[in-house]
Amino acid sequence: MLPTPKRFFLTAGCAEGRSELTAFDGALLNAGIGNINLIKVSSILPPHAEFTPGMELPAGALVPTAYGSIISTEPGTIISAAIAVGLSQDSFGVIMELVGKFTKHEAEERIRQMVGESFEMRGMTLMETKVSVVEHKVNKIGCALAAAPMWY
Amino acid sequence: MLPTPKRFFLTAGCAEGRSELTAFDGALLNAGIGNINLIKVSSILPPHAEFTPGMELPAGALVPTAYGSIISTEPGTIISAAIAVGLSQDSFGVIMELVGKFTKHEAEERIRQMVGESFEMRGMTLMETKVSVVEHKVNKIGCALAAAPMWY
Amino acid sequence: MLPTPKRFFLTAGCAEGRSELTAFDGALLNAGIGNINLIKVSSILPPHAEFTPGMELPAGALVPTAYGSIISTEPGTIISAAIAVGLSQDSFGVIMELVGKFTKHEAEERIRQMVGESFEMRGMTLMETKVSVVEHKVNKIGCALAAAPMWY
Repeated sequence: MLPTPKRFFLTAGCAEGRSELTAFDGALLNAGIGNINLIKVSSILPPHAEFTPGMELPAGALVPTAYGSIISTEPGTIISAAIAVGLSQDSFGVIMELVGKFTKHEAEERIRQMVGESFEMRGMTLMETKVSVVEHKVNKIGCALAAAPMWY
Repeated sequence: MLPTPKRFFLTAGCAEGRSELTAFDGALLNAGIGNINLIKVSSILPPHAEFTPGMELPAGALVPTAYGSIISTEPGTIISAAIAVGLSQDSFGVIMELVGKFTKHEAEERIRQMVGESFEMRGMTLMETKVSVVEHKVNKIGCALAAAPMWY
Repeated sequence: MLPTPKRFFLTAGCAEGRSELTAFDGALLNAGIGNINLIKVSSILPPHAEFTPGMELPAGALVPTAYGSIISTEPGTIISAAIAVGLSQDSFGVIMELVGKFTKHEAEERIRQMVGESFEMRGMTLMETKVSVVEHKVNKIGCALAAAPMWY
């Protein structure tokens, strides 16, 4: 089997680019995860995974990551990306991501509700929610991104 | 290399949520795969992989999965998600997914044709097609999802 | 951890299909990567990864791959897909993908600029850019795809 991740952190970033993909690339760099290979996962924090902010990841590594991103080409638009993980007492956690044309404050409020709903649906008790969120005002081609990289 | 999966099953589920992502999360739970990390793959059943319905997957595990999902916010709309795997005599199989605004019956008919076409393109003989399909009538925010999780 | 890839190649392909997903499937076959499980990654070439064109991949294998694809159902439309990897002197590389309704020539020109920008953003010196690109004129349902599969 593929090894189950043991550590994680949350991050968010934003950038302008001369194309949509380079704006995305810049947002990854701004979030500190631009030099790895994100593998998108959907989106459970494994039991006992340890919160390890500032963890260094080897360049080119395959990193299972829950993430969301939004790219806009409308100058002046406010875009936000949020990632949240709901932690249980002694079991797995649930990761939610949210992107859209709203403020950082609104993104955070909404994503906390989403985490709450995900625990409610599972009949689990939510002990703590960690959130990372970023807001960006588009100049020409802008990207906002939030991610929960998981590692070993 | 990453280990090649040895077992698989098919599943489908649907749910309403208070947001799009929680509808998706609910559909995963309804399909029995809500507490793992899906890694989306595209989409070949490895040779000799064994059909293992009801397989238990560890919480938070990284599970290679071919899947498709559809989310609709139009009350009353019928949405369906189907997954199918075409099996050959002694080689690999081909997995197809299909989602859209049609009935379960139509989804199943279409996806069987898609599997047939995928074998035709490869000059392979189709021995059997396994299908899982779900239909959902949207109330407020609904999601239908069908998946072929692969495991070890 | 998941093992970091050690080899890679670039490829591109196109096809018509009787449905969108079978057009995609046909494009994968045309590109020579139709019988594996692509895992989409985003999108760094690991340090010292060796360029290995014509590499054989086992059927059903899980293959980390940076790729982009476009499907069009507008007869007569020209679609293109390009993949490029920028190589540094002795560190990692950066992979870019680009798809759209433009010619092969335009796709290649644009993607070279994107690779340049990605190196600029990192303050790295670009030594060489490898590109694979395909152009397709849609008949009924057409797909163009370009990919950088990574392997071991």
